[in-house]
Amino acid sequence: MIERRRSWWGWGWEGEGPNAEQRTAIARSLAGRFGLASLPIAEPPELKDVELREPRIAPPSSLAAICSTETYDRAGHSYGKSFRDIVRGFAGQFPHPPDVVVFPQDEAEVIAALDWCGEAGVAAIPYGGGSSVVGGVEFGGDGYAGTAVLDLSGMGRVLEVDTVSRAARIQAGAYGPALEEQLRPHGYTLRHFPQSFEFSTLGGWLATRSGGHYASVYTHIDDMVESMRVITPAGVCESRRLPGSGAGPSPDRMFLGSEGSLGIITEAWMRVQGRVQFRSSAGVVFPTYAQGVAATRAVSQSALFPTNCRLLDAKEAMATTGTSTEGALLVLGFESADHPVDAWMARAVELCQDHGGSLPDGVRSSGPNTDAAASREGAVGAWRNAFVRAPYARDAVVAMSVIVETFETACTWDRFPELHASCIETVERALADICGAGWVTCRFTHVYPDGPAPYFSITAPGKRGSEIQQWNEIKAAASEAVLANGGTITHHHAVGRDHRPWYDRQRPELFGDALAAAKSVLDSDWILNPGVIVSPRPG
Amino acid sequence: MIERRRSWWGWGWEGEGPNAEQRTAIARSLAGRFGLASLPIAEPPELKDVELREPRIAPPSSLAAICSTETYDRAGHSYGKSFRDIVRGFAGQFPHPPDVVVFPQDEAEVIAALDWCGEAGVAAIPYGGGSSVVGGVEFGGDGYAGTAVLDLSGMGRVLEVDTVSRAARIQAGAYGPALEEQLRPHGYTLRHFPQSFEFSTLGGWLATRSGGHYASVYTHIDDMVESMRVITPAGVCESRRLPGSGAGPSPDRMFLGSEGSLGIITEAWMRVQGRVQFRSSAGVVFPTYAQGVAATRAVSQSALFPTNCRLLDAKEAMATTGTSTEGALLVLGFESADHPVDAWMARAVELCQDHGGSLPDGVRSSGPNTDAAASREGAVGAWRNAFVRAPYARDAVVAMSVIVETFETACTWDRFPELHASCIETVERALADICGAGWVTCRFTHVYPDGPAPYFSITAPGKRGSEIQQWNEIKAAASEAVLANGGTITHHHAVGRDHRPWYDRQRPELFGDALAAAKSVLDSDWILNPGVIVSPRPG
Repeated sequence: MIERRRSWWGWGWEGEGPNAEQRTAIARSLAGRFGLASLPIAEPPELKDVELREPRIAPPSSLAAICSTETYDRAGHSYGKSFRDIVRGFAGQFPHPPDVVVFPQDEAEVIAALDWCGEAGVAAIPYGGGSSVVGGVEFGGDGYAGTAVLDLSGMGRVLEVDTVSRAARIQAGAYGPALEEQLRPHGYTLRHFPQSFEFSTLGGWLATRSGGHYASVYTHIDDMVESMRVITPAGVCESRRLPGSGAGPSPDRMFLGSEGSLGIITEAWMRVQGRVQFRSSAGVVFPTYAQGVAATRAVSQSALFPTNCRLLDAKEAMATTGTSTEGALLVLGFESADHPVDAWMARAVELCQDHGGSLPDGVRSSGPNTDAAASREGAVGAWRNAFVRAPYARDAVVAMSVIVETFETACTWDRFPELHASCIETVERALADICGAGWVTCRFTHVYPDGPAPYFSITAPGKRGSEIQQWNEIKAAASEAVLANGGTITHHHAVGRDHRPWYDRQRPELFGDALAAAKSVLDSDWILNPGVIVSPRPG
Repeated sequence: MIERRRSWWGWGWEGEGPNAEQRTAIARSLAGRFGLASLPIAEPPELKDVELREPRIAPPSSLAAICSTETYDRAGHSYGKSFRDIVRGFAGQFPHPPDVVVFPQDEAEVIAALDWCGEAGVAAIPYGGGSSVVGGVEFGGDGYAGTAVLDLSGMGRVLEVDTVSRAARIQAGAYGPALEEQLRPHGYTLRHFPQSFEFSTLGGWLATRSGGHYASVYTHIDDMVESMRVITPAGVCESRRLPGSGAGPSPDRMFLGSEGSLGIITEAWMRVQGRVQFRSSAGVVFPTYAQGVAATRAVSQSALFPTNCRLLDAKEAMATTGTSTEGALLVLGFESADHPVDAWMARAVELCQDHGGSLPDGVRSSGPNTDAAASREGAVGAWRNAFVRAPYARDAVVAMSVIVETFETACTWDRFPELHASCIETVERALADICGAGWVTCRFTHVYPDGPAPYFSITAPGKRGSEIQQWNEIKAAASEAVLANGGTITHHHAVGRDHRPWYDRQRPELFGDALAAAKSVLDSDWILNPGVIVSPRPG
């Protein structure tokens, strides 16, 4: 048996992703979209060509057994998986790799590693699956003796399952698939499926306030947490297992979204669910985008709580499902572990029809005794497949110097039409100016009664060697448009280092000061993930 | 027209509550319950008999117009509305009244008042409706030049309504009924109905993480907040209006539950809802309490999201609805502004029947064209009426030296049977030891997939003049039982000063340190609500 190995420069497993023939087809399709004759395809990098700076620090012998200074590990832990990261990895550029990668196997080793970092003035970068697309795990190193990445993947077990309360105590380093595999024998699922699912961890989800695959109610990881255990340089901070509480400000909410800047989450009690038995899905086509938005708003305000409620604009509907419309396609779905959801779907369809929606494929429903594959057919199924494979496809187009980027936000419904128009217009203008061509599409990933979470995808022909500069300019233009129109700089991609300037403008200044004061108590040497959320060090 | 006036010693409006005849009937009923021949009824206090310490401080002339040193205002703002508070008010005991009560009419006046407090070393106690049952607005005064209560009731307007996003900008001093009255012309409701609804404010709800009347999904006030505006001594802290966000730790969550210790909430954008059109309710009787618990757990884990799901034990079912059962009564309800809820109720009833439940009164449903009064009949309606009038009845029994107390918590389902047994046994033993008689009942106020929020009610014959000491002992015994069995010291009554010792044990110590550091930044003179949540001042 050949063991699969993670790619050290791109997404996922080495050797996965489109094959040569598929890459050629992608290049031809994109060239056509951009009005170009062809797109060149570069060869991926090889590890033997990568030269890294010598490690500047050496861990104490007591930690040596769990530390690596191998090029594969250091290069592979230098970046997250943003477009910038893939471009640099593809080019073999690793100017500031971590000096050492630590793989703690238990809490005692996490504590030992943090103690060493504190004593030696080494920056400690918590690392889950490394799927950050916002520079969350990349540190330049200024002001520190060195950089140690703490990779939690050695702590990936489901430790305890409470079948009465439907909750499980899970180690933070558990990857999505391994976590689900351990819950399955109990009949449970965490039911949290971000696009990065296969290569991200529970701890990463918690630290970044991950958004799940589902559209409404309990979908952000925040809402699935019963309690958390966090190792800070000042000690262990563990909250009580509670289904709800009103005892002061929530301790968990301080660590949710702290992105490794306040402590290292080592385990959490998570609310789990019965596995889905009943499904109903439909693709609803609208003649105009505005009608699609109005229908989606109506569904989101109905308290029907759909599990899927993704409004795809015309371009995205065509690109990911092959659906042809001048308006929009709403991918609508209901699921339940307990009961048929026909009444829910029927009312949602009524609301859509009230706003001009039609159902060319009708409604597909399945129960516990029917084939689950039914819900994977048609526009809905096509969309799902494209979703899961997208990060691999991105690696492939980086080889063509194509710029791909996604940016996402949330805003109230009253602001959405202007935010949408402004983002599309701003980005299209930026793409024309910077790349000479390109396109941008929009879908909703989540909906709330008071507003949607729109997600924009950008594809444009880049110039080899200038992709990052081009990306920077496009990203800045998009971020400005989001902020100016009442959006959040991130709904579920986190802040990291890339979003930091806009986050600082969005965040109430005094709240930033309060967080910095909290960090001074929990991480008095300021060794944890420097530059993220709370920085610079005050005073 | 005679203007109604708030009681300065008890609940609600002066002159409301049971009349003489009703009081006699209550005394007779309680005496019977305790096995006593009779209960004496004392006369309520009169304001002219109350003598307060002279004010030790005088506000600057610029604030004089909004300040009161009247005995009515100072006595009326000395306490919240806990049993201890009513006993002391009834006895005319006000040993540490606030020196001045400030009634700011806008944010500028809030800022001016805080500036004065900071300069003069005066403790500033934020005050909404004053309905705290945990000593949240009572300050002894040690270490400060004086005490100023800031009563926000002059800031009670709905400032803006966004009919697209279904949200409203509301001043924090808005009382429940006034807030609903201002939303009604727009067809909206905040749909947040704590038992204190008539005499509590939006700001108070936010500061204490109030729990609404409804059983599941969006019921804690935390989940209805889009953004908040908070005045701290260090400046204004305002979050962005967002339906959801993943940009760092939530700023709002730091202030939610801060109980006036970090700043004064002046307004918030709140998510509002369409008014309810469809209702379905049922009273389900279970032969045993354990079956009732199992059924309630099944419903809470079904994702049907009932609006009411209150499991009443046998004593409480009899006392508040007249339902006779050896087991339990589940008050079950579904409501919607959008669609009939029959399918939801049908499945919930099935789940109850699977666990031995029966429906002596069947299911009552009503739609937009039927009489809403239908849902106010039967066991469900009886329960509702008793709920709303309960605080007035408590004033009446204080006159009989009867000890009444409620304590509430939340725990995971796996811990509930032991927590329940231990709380009942502990309190019954304490009542027997301390009062010679008494009873305790339990209902659920809220249910979560992973656990219920049980609410215990105590009634016992007290000894005139010793009620507070007796209450202290009972309260301590109950609180110990809650903590020892995995509960939270409060699910929705807040911490205040009464729950502080147990809160400190429940809260992760490092989180307390982080909050104290945050307070040092936001309230560097530590003038805000001293003793609550974060104290003592570090260093």
